[in-house]
Amino acid sequence: MRIDQLMLPEREEKPRTSGITVLIDNGVPLNFFRDTVISSGKYIDFVKFGWGTSLVTEQLSEKIACLRYHDIEFFFGGTLFEKFASQGKVESFHRYCKKSGCRYVEISNGTIEMTNSEKALYIEQFSRDFSVFSEVGSKSGEISDGQNSSQWIDWICEDLNAGAKKVITETRESGTSGLCRSNGEIRLDIIGDIVASGIDLDSVIFEAPSKRIQTELIKAAGADVNLANISFSDTIPLETLRLGLRSDTFHLFKGDAVNARN
Amino acid sequence: MRIDQLMLPEREEKPRTSGITVLIDNGVPLNFFRDTVISSGKYIDFVKFGWGTSLVTEQLSEKIACLRYHDIEFFFGGTLFEKFASQGKVESFHRYCKKSGCRYVEISNGTIEMTNSEKALYIEQFSRDFSVFSEVGSKSGEISDGQNSSQWIDWICEDLNAGAKKVITETRESGTSGLCRSNGEIRLDIIGDIVASGIDLDSVIFEAPSKRIQTELIKAAGADVNLANISFSDTIPLETLRLGLRSDTFHLFKGDAVNARN
Amino acid sequence: MRIDQLMLPEREEKPRTSGITVLIDNGVPLNFFRDTVISSGKYIDFVKFGWGTSLVTEQLSEKIACLRYHDIEFFFGGTLFEKFASQGKVESFHRYCKKSGCRYVEISNGTIEMTNSEKALYIEQFSRDFSVFSEVGSKSGEISDGQNSSQWIDWICEDLNAGAKKVITETRESGTSGLCRSNGEIRLDIIGDIVASGIDLDSVIFEAPSKRIQTELIKAAGADVNLANISFSDTIPLETLRLGLRSDTFHLFKGDAVNARN
Repeated sequence: MRIDQLMLPEREEKPRTSGITVLIDNGVPLNFFRDTVISSGKYIDFVKFGWGTSLVTEQLSEKIACLRYHDIEFFFGGTLFEKFASQGKVESFHRYCKKSGCRYVEISNGTIEMTNSEKALYIEQFSRDFSVFSEVGSKSGEISDGQNSSQWIDWICEDLNAGAKKVITETRESGTSGLCRSNGEIRLDIIGDIVASGIDLDSVIFEAPSKRIQTELIKAAGADVNLANISFSDTIPLETLRLGLRSDTFHLFKGDAVNARN
Repeated sequence: MRIDQLMLPEREEKPRTSGITVLIDNGVPLNFFRDTVISSGKYIDFVKFGWGTSLVTEQLSEKIACLRYHDIEFFFGGTLFEKFASQGKVESFHRYCKKSGCRYVEISNGTIEMTNSEKALYIEQFSRDFSVFSEVGSKSGEISDGQNSSQWIDWICEDLNAGAKKVITETRESGTSGLCRSNGEIRLDIIGDIVASGIDLDSVIFEAPSKRIQTELIKAAGADVNLANISFSDTIPLETLRLGLRSDTFHLFKGDAVNARN
Repeated sequence: MRIDQLMLPEREEKPRTSGITVLIDNGVPLNFFRDTVISSGKYIDFVKFGWGTSLVTEQLSEKIACLRYHDIEFFFGGTLFEKFASQGKVESFHRYCKKSGCRYVEISNGTIEMTNSEKALYIEQFSRDFSVFSEVGSKSGEISDGQNSSQWIDWICEDLNAGAKKVITETRESGTSGLCRSNGEIRLDIIGDIVASGIDLDSVIFEAPSKRIQTELIKAAGADVNLANISFSDTIPLETLRLGLRSDTFHLFKGDAVNARN
């Protein structure tokens, strides 16, 4: 049914160039996976099979088939790449992605000791066969605390120059590293500087594992900010945050965007 | 099978006049929604489609059909009313509720600036066509911190006088506003004063989004306190709290209530 | 598909003698229950029907049938035993377990006042008809704070001597009692002392309701530590922690364990 004249931010249809939502699958069971995709697939652009979960998921191919059917892309978590890399088996990872039908891969160095230059080489190498999402930032709270805006901006540019299609900014599930301080505080300064830096925000995806962080990123960068590490159960709640339909972002959007929702 | 003589608090069957449980649907997928309702529908009196989720839920009519079949009533979150109100479109909200088959509506002013007198007018107006649940309390922690028992009691009475069938007391999911302080502390003083005020507790529904708050409210007002904003996954856990079958409320209920459970 | 030569810790197949995972069912709906068991049953050794949830679960027999089919054992939470005990009805509990087809029971004294000697008598009595899992530790944070390693080790030995097949160490969902301090800090000292005590760790199951606690226990006692109170949604995440496939335990396992995963 049509709701007369409720003004809400306009959102692109899939395939979108901005306002992308990347869910993280931490190993939800198959029917719940399908249930979520069928119920709200129009709001889901990508599913990341988190860290190494794909290796212990019995019905990975059924999950992938479900995503293909609903025009949702997928990739494996960067930690899996790092696991292979730490054992000197990056070629095996490449084969694994090929065999799984991936069109996207995530290349990161958040857990292992790998220089950004080494990472750039892998980005170049993988971008011959895949669209590469690279990740910047550390999973360590201590390391993250010592980092500043210009470093973050440099890393993003470095990876884009190396051939990354998009760059993902790290923020752990617990919200205590990457774009959060180890005490949980969100680095609004860095987020603000990235937004103001002139980097094309369509090329950046912010990890936003909690409502608090999603809210701050929408406030800083708008309804159409690209967000990742969204839990399956946050699919609909996130869409309402983007549209100003929840108290947290209620006052962001005024009558400037006109779109009658039905 | 029958369990000989385990003494547990007696609970009314549906439709109940007290001990009401209101789930909040934050956008769970359709089959999980049905699964919960089928598995534990006898413990569910109402489902609230949280804030503006109903507008981005593809299969809203299937969810509503499932609730009707299981004798569960529903309404839309007060924030949706406020969204329409903030754009001067309360009549559209009225039509939306009518078209959706609602018998209940929630009228609140937790997010927008609307005086209680204005809210009372809407309560009167909507109560001609619906049973009205009004909400009292703010979603802002700062505002909540400055409020006291006699204000809360006044608001509840005011809304009941205006025609509200029941009044819902605000407590955000995060437990940092409404009947919680911004630091998360539960306002046991206000809860105690409401219980002691002589207000008919069958007319009050307390939002209780966490086990901690559910426990305190059961301790303060008994097994049959009306509770709202219960997550789908808390349906069974809440029922065990009401019955003293979990450690948190284990010692509340002695041999004074006799009811052999099977 | 086969992943060439990724080195991961070797894990036993079911039925396992170590590396046991005990899920806790807090009342999930039936189809989600089945979905989890079907999707990842090979990683699940036991399901505990948490506290008194079994008494308010409509389709308990369907859940039990599903577990039997997938070679997963089950038992009722110790709090249910304590509820019956507190009303002087331990024989009814015995009959309830028999009628439900239990082969395992949990005997605890975490909530009621029952001396360890009294508990030992129940362990002896029930171990004639069931395999007994006993639980040690308190659900009270205050009481837990005052306890030390030698007490914990004594309790474990006492229960094993009384006939318990395995002993479960208490840690509440909130992580604020048992092997945690009331402030949430994990008692690494006690865990370390239990590991070093010479007690057969195959006989001990540690409650580990959060990723943080799971991680610390795997660090202290290895990939094959027995863990309980794992939520349904943590089934796959826990397995990845055991295998070093997640950042938290990534660096624990080097090339010393060889096992090509597929």
